[in-house]
Amino acid sequence: MSGRWGLFDDLAGALDHPAGTEDIGLRPDLERERRAGIPEVVYAGHKQTEDVILALNRLVGANGRALASRCTDATITAIEQAFAGDHRIETFYQTVVVSRFDAHPPAGHGTVGLLTAGTSDNVCAAEAGAMLREMGVEVVLARDVGVAGLHRLVEPLQLMAQADVDAIVVAAGMDGALPSVVAGLVPVPVIGLPVSTGYGLGGRGEAALYSMLQSCAPGLAVVNIDNGIGAAATAGLIARRAARARQQAGS
Amino acid sequence: MSGRWGLFDDLAGALDHPAGTEDIGLRPDLERERRAGIPEVVYAGHKQTEDVILALNRLVGANGRALASRCTDATITAIEQAFAGDHRIETFYQTVVVSRFDAHPPAGHGTVGLLTAGTSDNVCAAEAGAMLREMGVEVVLARDVGVAGLHRLVEPLQLMAQADVDAIVVAAGMDGALPSVVAGLVPVPVIGLPVSTGYGLGGRGEAALYSMLQSCAPGLAVVNIDNGIGAAATAGLIARRAARARQQAGS
Amino acid sequence: MSGRWGLFDDLAGALDHPAGTEDIGLRPDLERERRAGIPEVVYAGHKQTEDVILALNRLVGANGRALASRCTDATITAIEQAFAGDHRIETFYQTVVVSRFDAHPPAGHGTVGLLTAGTSDNVCAAEAGAMLREMGVEVVLARDVGVAGLHRLVEPLQLMAQADVDAIVVAAGMDGALPSVVAGLVPVPVIGLPVSTGYGLGGRGEAALYSMLQSCAPGLAVVNIDNGIGAAATAGLIARRAARARQQAGS
Amino acid sequence: MSGRWGLFDDLAGALDHPAGTEDIGLRPDLERERRAGIPEVVYAGHKQTEDVILALNRLVGANGRALASRCTDATITAIEQAFAGDHRIETFYQTVVVSRFDAHPPAGHGTVGLLTAGTSDNVCAAEAGAMLREMGVEVVLARDVGVAGLHRLVEPLQLMAQADVDAIVVAAGMDGALPSVVAGLVPVPVIGLPVSTGYGLGGRGEAALYSMLQSCAPGLAVVNIDNGIGAAATAGLIARRAARARQQAGS
Amino acid sequence: MSGRWGLFDDLAGALDHPAGTEDIGLRPDLERERRAGIPEVVYAGHKQTEDVILALNRLVGANGRALASRCTDATITAIEQAFAGDHRIETFYQTVVVSRFDAHPPAGHGTVGLLTAGTSDNVCAAEAGAMLREMGVEVVLARDVGVAGLHRLVEPLQLMAQADVDAIVVAAGMDGALPSVVAGLVPVPVIGLPVSTGYGLGGRGEAALYSMLQSCAPGLAVVNIDNGIGAAATAGLIARRAARARQQAGS
Amino acid sequence: MSGRWGLFDDLAGALDHPAGTEDIGLRPDLERERRAGIPEVVYAGHKQTEDVILALNRLVGANGRALASRCTDATITAIEQAFAGDHRIETFYQTVVVSRFDAHPPAGHGTVGLLTAGTSDNVCAAEAGAMLREMGVEVVLARDVGVAGLHRLVEPLQLMAQADVDAIVVAAGMDGALPSVVAGLVPVPVIGLPVSTGYGLGGRGEAALYSMLQSCAPGLAVVNIDNGIGAAATAGLIARRAARARQQAGS
Amino acid sequence: MSGRWGLFDDLAGALDHPAGTEDIGLRPDLERERRAGIPEVVYAGHKQTEDVILALNRLVGANGRALASRCTDATITAIEQAFAGDHRIETFYQTVVVSRFDAHPPAGHGTVGLLTAGTSDNVCAAEAGAMLREMGVEVVLARDVGVAGLHRLVEPLQLMAQADVDAIVVAAGMDGALPSVVAGLVPVPVIGLPVSTGYGLGGRGEAALYSMLQSCAPGLAVVNIDNGIGAAATAGLIARRAARARQQAGS
Amino acid sequence: MSGRWGLFDDLAGALDHPAGTEDIGLRPDLERERRAGIPEVVYAGHKQTEDVILALNRLVGANGRALASRCTDATITAIEQAFAGDHRIETFYQTVVVSRFDAHPPAGHGTVGLLTAGTSDNVCAAEAGAMLREMGVEVVLARDVGVAGLHRLVEPLQLMAQADVDAIVVAAGMDGALPSVVAGLVPVPVIGLPVSTGYGLGGRGEAALYSMLQSCAPGLAVVNIDNGIGAAATAGLIARRAARARQQAGS
Repeated sequence: MSGRWGLFDDLAGALDHPAGTEDIGLRPDLERERRAGIPEVVYAGHKQTEDVILALNRLVGANGRALASRCTDATITAIEQAFAGDHRIETFYQTVVVSRFDAHPPAGHGTVGLLTAGTSDNVCAAEAGAMLREMGVEVVLARDVGVAGLHRLVEPLQLMAQADVDAIVVAAGMDGALPSVVAGLVPVPVIGLPVSTGYGLGGRGEAALYSMLQSCAPGLAVVNIDNGIGAAATAGLIARRAARARQQAGS
Repeated sequence: MSGRWGLFDDLAGALDHPAGTEDIGLRPDLERERRAGIPEVVYAGHKQTEDVILALNRLVGANGRALASRCTDATITAIEQAFAGDHRIETFYQTVVVSRFDAHPPAGHGTVGLLTAGTSDNVCAAEAGAMLREMGVEVVLARDVGVAGLHRLVEPLQLMAQADVDAIVVAAGMDGALPSVVAGLVPVPVIGLPVSTGYGLGGRGEAALYSMLQSCAPGLAVVNIDNGIGAAATAGLIARRAARARQQAGS
Repeated sequence: MSGRWGLFDDLAGALDHPAGTEDIGLRPDLERERRAGIPEVVYAGHKQTEDVILALNRLVGANGRALASRCTDATITAIEQAFAGDHRIETFYQTVVVSRFDAHPPAGHGTVGLLTAGTSDNVCAAEAGAMLREMGVEVVLARDVGVAGLHRLVEPLQLMAQADVDAIVVAAGMDGALPSVVAGLVPVPVIGLPVSTGYGLGGRGEAALYSMLQSCAPGLAVVNIDNGIGAAATAGLIARRAARARQQAGS
Repeated sequence: MSGRWGLFDDLAGALDHPAGTEDIGLRPDLERERRAGIPEVVYAGHKQTEDVILALNRLVGANGRALASRCTDATITAIEQAFAGDHRIETFYQTVVVSRFDAHPPAGHGTVGLLTAGTSDNVCAAEAGAMLREMGVEVVLARDVGVAGLHRLVEPLQLMAQADVDAIVVAAGMDGALPSVVAGLVPVPVIGLPVSTGYGLGGRGEAALYSMLQSCAPGLAVVNIDNGIGAAATAGLIARRAARARQQAGS
Repeated sequence: MSGRWGLFDDLAGALDHPAGTEDIGLRPDLERERRAGIPEVVYAGHKQTEDVILALNRLVGANGRALASRCTDATITAIEQAFAGDHRIETFYQTVVVSRFDAHPPAGHGTVGLLTAGTSDNVCAAEAGAMLREMGVEVVLARDVGVAGLHRLVEPLQLMAQADVDAIVVAAGMDGALPSVVAGLVPVPVIGLPVSTGYGLGGRGEAALYSMLQSCAPGLAVVNIDNGIGAAATAGLIARRAARARQQAGS
Repeated sequence: MSGRWGLFDDLAGALDHPAGTEDIGLRPDLERERRAGIPEVVYAGHKQTEDVILALNRLVGANGRALASRCTDATITAIEQAFAGDHRIETFYQTVVVSRFDAHPPAGHGTVGLLTAGTSDNVCAAEAGAMLREMGVEVVLARDVGVAGLHRLVEPLQLMAQADVDAIVVAAGMDGALPSVVAGLVPVPVIGLPVSTGYGLGGRGEAALYSMLQSCAPGLAVVNIDNGIGAAATAGLIARRAARARQQAGS
Repeated sequence: MSGRWGLFDDLAGALDHPAGTEDIGLRPDLERERRAGIPEVVYAGHKQTEDVILALNRLVGANGRALASRCTDATITAIEQAFAGDHRIETFYQTVVVSRFDAHPPAGHGTVGLLTAGTSDNVCAAEAGAMLREMGVEVVLARDVGVAGLHRLVEPLQLMAQADVDAIVVAAGMDGALPSVVAGLVPVPVIGLPVSTGYGLGGRGEAALYSMLQSCAPGLAVVNIDNGIGAAATAGLIARRAARARQQAGS
Repeated sequence: MSGRWGLFDDLAGALDHPAGTEDIGLRPDLERERRAGIPEVVYAGHKQTEDVILALNRLVGANGRALASRCTDATITAIEQAFAGDHRIETFYQTVVVSRFDAHPPAGHGTVGLLTAGTSDNVCAAEAGAMLREMGVEVVLARDVGVAGLHRLVEPLQLMAQADVDAIVVAAGMDGALPSVVAGLVPVPVIGLPVSTGYGLGGRGEAALYSMLQSCAPGLAVVNIDNGIGAAATAGLIARRAARARQQAGS
């Protein structure tokens, strides 16, 4: 065991049994929520249904609540059958939250605006909204405010200014122009969430992502296409940071 | 509400309640037809069937007529069930027009030629044709005139010259060579409409779009693959502009 | 000479010696301007300087005026040396117009608006502007009106409304969002001209082109990246058509 | 001026003369810094040197300070010649800050960590660092901590924890793995800044960007390849928001 | 009808009614077989089943025989139902030949070798083989001779040398290396036919096509992925040309 | 048969009838296992079920054992029906091993570590594991050790160091960062196995493959996305080589 | 040397010393011309000038003549210096033919048509033309006959019909439409030669290649972008095959 | 410092000061060679010359020897000036090895075959060869054995079989077919090294890499285009592992 393995052995002392990890096949990171306020999410997209149930079980057992994203209708039905009776099951399009009746999401960790350009963005926005709620972040939502009719953008941004949101998630497919326009108008960080709508060249969210990456408006960062969880996690961390500052300073 | 929000508040005065917008979830732009002659189209491609019905209902209620594109067979059946009896329902492949019996499309807004390279282009051409009709533009149609047998192109172009068309939409998949050939022969603007036929490298309309973008023939502009609505909207605006000039001058 | 050659022989009767073509190596289409109002342009990008001079010579000899696009500094110098004294030489960034002192561009063929999102779009816009002038089309120009500061868009669009432009060319690189915003606000055809600015993913105009192709705003057609000649040719044909209608009707 | 132009006229009332815009060719947004704390940056990449000088002049005249990114050596020399004597000129690789001797960057707007994976990331990191300083944000910097030797990551992250940074910008080219690793370890938002190093497939920063977009670690958002300004603008807005909260609560 | 339409009118004289074209919706080129020896093929891939039947009907009526490619199982069943009884129906995977009982394929137009790299190439090879037979070209077939076991290549090439083939079609997916190897060994033209096998990067025939295009072996030309008809048409034209030369010289 | 065919005839002498090849349609390379220790694998992905059965039959007849990869559920059922009773049938997700009851996999050919980043990598890892077993290589397996929680990596690498593995296969989708991290820590060759998880830009394993190709860590080679067979073949050859050295030297 | 090496040893007997190969660093295949009529070409693109001279020397020594493609001006000068006096040196743009004064190209091996769409195609066409001459194939050349002015195509095709060409090479960049149009009109094989002209999306020959691969016209095969040598090799093999047939039959 | 920072603090104990790392700006991993036998390489591609000299100085000071890859001519000259007199400087195309006169490369760590397809692969092969030598691995080299003349492959493979190489690195550009052919013939692991030759579609090594990734031959793993260091590192680790086994067993 000479060679580079040596360095690796040094690593082991500190890392081997950190609190919160167990090794029973799956290795979910049960401490993550405590450490960073970001709940562990069960991404159901490439998993067998039974693995989704198993992971939810573990997380609900540990934290009282759990969130699964990208569930098919069949997976949602299986979740309902597995947890019905003992748990509250909330479904937001393809996102499901399972919680013990006595477990409630946190609160008071700041506020995030959530804008969508069209009705096709609902699925992604719901994923982001559910995640934000599980992070204890309040959401101000406005939908269907795309740039093709710019006058529709006014009232939503007024609401967000009044709510003094800490960040804004802007979901948009097709041309993906809305986040650039919004980031040019507001003084808070904007997280662009490209959505896999559109067809032809640049379709399936590619033009939207490209356009957001090329945005002339500073203050716009992006996540991958349809990654509502990721957009919410970043916006939620921003809001939690600001809320913590408000609380610490206020104490 | 300091910072950039301030600029945004300035915006609100003029934009907050423009005529023709309502905020009940969907925000269809009901005034668009009046403003530009382009009807609001319900793009059914990424929408739930019930949302399509809802949007059509709103538009038919406001304008007497409405057009839905990219409908699946199931969506078409649902539309027929929802509107049958009270409305006229016309289906052009995947495009559906719903109209009150007393509502008729406009007329007299110019003439557009519509050429297809092959029978695979029918779906897109029908979408464009229906849109043009709803814009009050007359259509001169010729199909299956691809470049592999160039002699087939003669009669159609003669017809379009005789009709003195204001613009020509040319739908083509595969090699996408037809719009270049046509734009080299005619004295009116040509709108290239690439169609998602073809397989292998450059398939699904990509080679067609690329070839149109690279055309040596000036006077050819393009829309995205399969975007019959967009091609018709541009060609229709051109025709409407010329027709208005004819009418204004004639008055 | 059996087989398909036979059909081809049939073609020859009508096509062999159309007016305006000569065969001396280059085959410039000297009649194009008369036929469609679009002057033959010498694309200098992939040509040897001596071939550019040769072609300009031919065109100036035939038409009194000629336009070369994508000239390097060296090519511009060579043009100046070749034509200085006898001709007027106008340079718009990389575009050069050579004209006999007695030859003037046409006029009265309508009006086109020309918008740019940023100062990086000047080169392409100049190419488009020069081409429009050579087509006899009046240009209403406004520069540096990108979407990151939306309030900058107002005055330019007011000017274009007052001038009653027949079409608008919108040049934009980076996110390419401006043409979508403009097409959502105006009642005339918009030609999107993506510009090869920007770096990283979607750079060199790719994101701009993709976003324009995916635009939610109907009435927007596009040309290839940096193709100012093509954008102008289409917009110019639209304007010429409307102007002809105004003239015919007015007569 | 009928049609959609009408809506546009409504827009004009509020938008026409907002404070801080002038129209003398360039339309820099001089109020941006006041509105959002993000200074207007002169992107020198696609501009003529004289345009860069002109824009810097305008901004320095208005704000006392200005920042130009992506300057070539020739541009830097020209800036030095144009402003030497009267101004302080600071150069960070390709980024230049010009300031009147009496104008100092703001301070007290929070703290951001800045990590680089290798020495090739210095140019981008310097761009981000200069921008953060101009936003009044303190920077904690650590370089050359790539994942191929993971033990190098410890000390830098300890420093950032001690400084209680509000966000971390992680610059990485090649495999782009570092931001994922960092985002898995820290409780603050991470902004991934892909850098255009690397060759072959996925080179020039593409693999880095793709890998960051696909990151399994929630709480990671990205900007485009080499966009140090953008990464800094987002991280700076986060820090400013938290700092404002600390200040407001503390008052 | 001034302008460029004028040139077009000149075209019409010769082109308007060439022998063999009719205008009844579809415009199949019924004379093509007579002109070039290449039968008109009904590409069923993007067509409705009824359109396929209609086109076959037309072609069988005119020529006694017809070939349809890319038929689904449902289309094949429909063809069998439509033509059963009166016609001979031969199915080669997705390729179908319908012929009147008294109509036989031509013969004596040369010989082509047909090699496949693996069993996954059978579908494409069958399409090519059927097409060659319809062109009157004899086929020498050898399958499953991929480069991973180079010794398997010997016997097939010996057979082709003995048959003195005029050209060789080599079908290969995955790495697409076989056509390069073959073209380096034989003195006749090789047509590379990339096949859409393989997965991951370069899958679905892309690596095969790229590798053939980059081949170091001169004398290799390619067609698009899965285009068995195209490969056969070119190889068949080569064989027919050589056979005609043999016949003319021999007479 | 003049020309290059001549060279080819020279080839034939040595190649024509090497031991182990037969020509009955399929040309499986039955000697491959004896030559290199790599069993011939039936790739079921693009084959008809009956062809899979046929090939398995041939291989089991010759070698007593055979392995099929990428089997659908239907293919697995067909295999079970075809071989049940007389053979042992083992299924590892989509990989199936069929063996005569008296035929056992080899043993004693070294040891390979097999790591996965997440549960979505199970299918590919199982394919690799089955292949390694058929090569007589012992496998040390650890799953779900992705970089988002780096502390999970310690125990698995300790196990592999203790087992003194000859090489490590690391399966990872999404960001593909794990192989780089592992290759930076261990003194044995690492084979990166990108897995087709992930969505959006860089999804389906593309970002994973790109990131592995761009790895800063020397000693990491890769195979294509989802190619568990290929990763195992290379790692297995490494292990077999080391094991042979141990045996030869020890004798 | 057990294992697969065994098979390899079998190969060696026949292959080890085939006539015409020598091993002195470079391994040019001096017999290739005798075997297939295709001369070995020195591709100068990625080679040091001295390596080009060395290879030419070897080939001229063996065959009396040699051809180098993709030469820079510097390489051409070096060739002239190296061979001047003793040899004839002919330069066709970037292609150079060096020959002993007593060595002449072959003749009588058929006829090939060579068409170009524009003057930018001259370099590639010259490469193809020189190669064809070295293969003993007569060339019928026509330039600048692009599809934007279709009437220019007539005279050239008439000449080729009269010459009874065995194949046609069609060089085209930009939209690449010309080969499709030609292949639809002629009864001989067409080799599409895409040329790296054009800019923006699909530029540098990509759109041309894609469009040729997607051609609706059967009988069109392609080579890679700018590969004039490859196009000529295939067309030349076709012509040589037909010429041999004419000669054999005639004897 | 609550939250996830806590876990990170745990990490610090073991990781903070591992032997062999120093923090003076650059963080070269001086212990790497001892740990794994892979020397730290100075990648000069994206570095300033002075940084290259600095890093070489550090490494030569620590280990007596150092290797820099991707050096420009200017960098090579600077290295010669910096180290001349006191050190031995060896240059292999763009790779430079600097060593104290008393420092010699290791030896006895196994044998690797190194094959190139053409003379354009020399630069990459030299990089790989130099790296292997620095790892103490013997190299058996054969160049210019591409698949277009397969008979050239025999003698090289015989030599490698006689030398009983532990692995083979195969460098190939263009079609990249050689590694597949070799991996089908030999019983040792093959590392494919794609080289950035070739032009047009799939040029610059892309087709080569794709084709290797799609190889039908098991036992072939790849590194990125032009990554000679990486190919050598993997092959060297394989050889070192086998050599260690031979030594341990022999002792």
